[in-house]
Amino acid sequence: MIKTNTIAPQTGVGFCLREGERLRVISPTGAQVADLFCFSENRPYDALSSGRSIDYNETVYLTVGHTLYSNQGVPLLQIIEDQGGRHDFLVTPCSLQMFQMLSGNQDYHRSCHENLCKAFTPFDRPTELITTTFNIFMNYRLDLQGRIQLGRPRCEAGTEIVFEACEDIVVGLTACADPATNDGQCKAIEYVIENASNQARALQMKLRPDH
Amino acid sequence: MIKTNTIAPQTGVGFCLREGERLRVISPTGAQVADLFCFSENRPYDALSSGRSIDYNETVYLTVGHTLYSNQGVPLLQIIEDQGGRHDFLVTPCSLQMFQMLSGNQDYHRSCHENLCKAFTPFDRPTELITTTFNIFMNYRLDLQGRIQLGRPRCEAGTEIVFEACEDIVVGLTACADPATNDGQCKAIEYVIENASNQARALQMKLRPDH
Repeated sequence: MIKTNTIAPQTGVGFCLREGERLRVISPTGAQVADLFCFSENRPYDALSSGRSIDYNETVYLTVGHTLYSNQGVPLLQIIEDQGGRHDFLVTPCSLQMFQMLSGNQDYHRSCHENLCKAFTPFDRPTELITTTFNIFMNYRLDLQGRIQLGRPRCEAGTEIVFEACEDIVVGLTACADPATNDGQCKAIEYVIENASNQARALQMKLRPDH
Repeated sequence: MIKTNTIAPQTGVGFCLREGERLRVISPTGAQVADLFCFSENRPYDALSSGRSIDYNETVYLTVGHTLYSNQGVPLLQIIEDQGGRHDFLVTPCSLQMFQMLSGNQDYHRSCHENLCKAFTPFDRPTELITTTFNIFMNYRLDLQGRIQLGRPRCEAGTEIVFEACEDIVVGLTACADPATNDGQCKAIEYVIENASNQARALQMKLRPDH
């Protein structure tokens, strides 16, 4: 049985992904972003690097066939499938500070940054190391002057992206907590961890849809 | 006396910059990039964040009036003057691994990553925390598909950029070690640290050029 996990709106989760396991991230409703960050399990401070990934893939828009690297230049994840086709790798997760800057007051607001900090707490990673996240389905348009402008997330109900772990990693994943990023309303995200045996089972189910 | 420091080609330096002090970085020859990375002095793991900086300034091309933020969202540096006008904040410093990937062999090559690691060693910062650097004068052109393409650095002989420290920080600065990035030849970089009193003196000298 392949388990589909749900990340409630404006929350996050942390989990381990073993080398070769796949992570399927799904927007069940459409128009919802999921922020992903990860660390090498065995090199505790070696985390996801937008800079290495953009450099080695020669693009700011990563999709199928691209690899996400760590700060040490080690491949952490490969993108295996991508129905959305547009993800952001330029900006940090939404944070309490960001909401306070935007609103001009000190009210509390749930944020992906806080949710990622909580997600990594059991794995003992300094929260200062959470920097630019891979923001799944987030749609930042760039113009030729380098300006960035936020659009509606590039996903409809059921849109998926699949990653494969290149080594054992610790993953933090959120259902983004910023209404403005998510077409006005924060919704859930689903994810599935698939290993070699349940990948085979998934394929079998696909081939025999009556099952 | 204001001291002009020289960073020899393919090397780097580390130093402290106190709140309010200014860092002037100069390309004495033109066509030479300098990679900059920094940490808060008092929050040892809180380092420069391209993601926060791009997000809060709403552009990938930072120039006068823009602020460089840390992973915790704290302002570290402001850009006060900028004669170059184009700097990269998308990619990591050149590294031994990058040269080995490009050349396909295992030869040693000097790199900004190694030079930054050495620069931060006396300040006891884990080198895994060196991620996307602010690559002064580095000229990556973006197209609307998000692809990046390297051009000649945006500086002539004597082109300068000036930063002001927003709090006490530890800075690593290099004369970039990648010939391909620097119009075929790696050259020196100069820098000056200016405090309030020598800023006044510099202004006085400017007003009286015979001195």
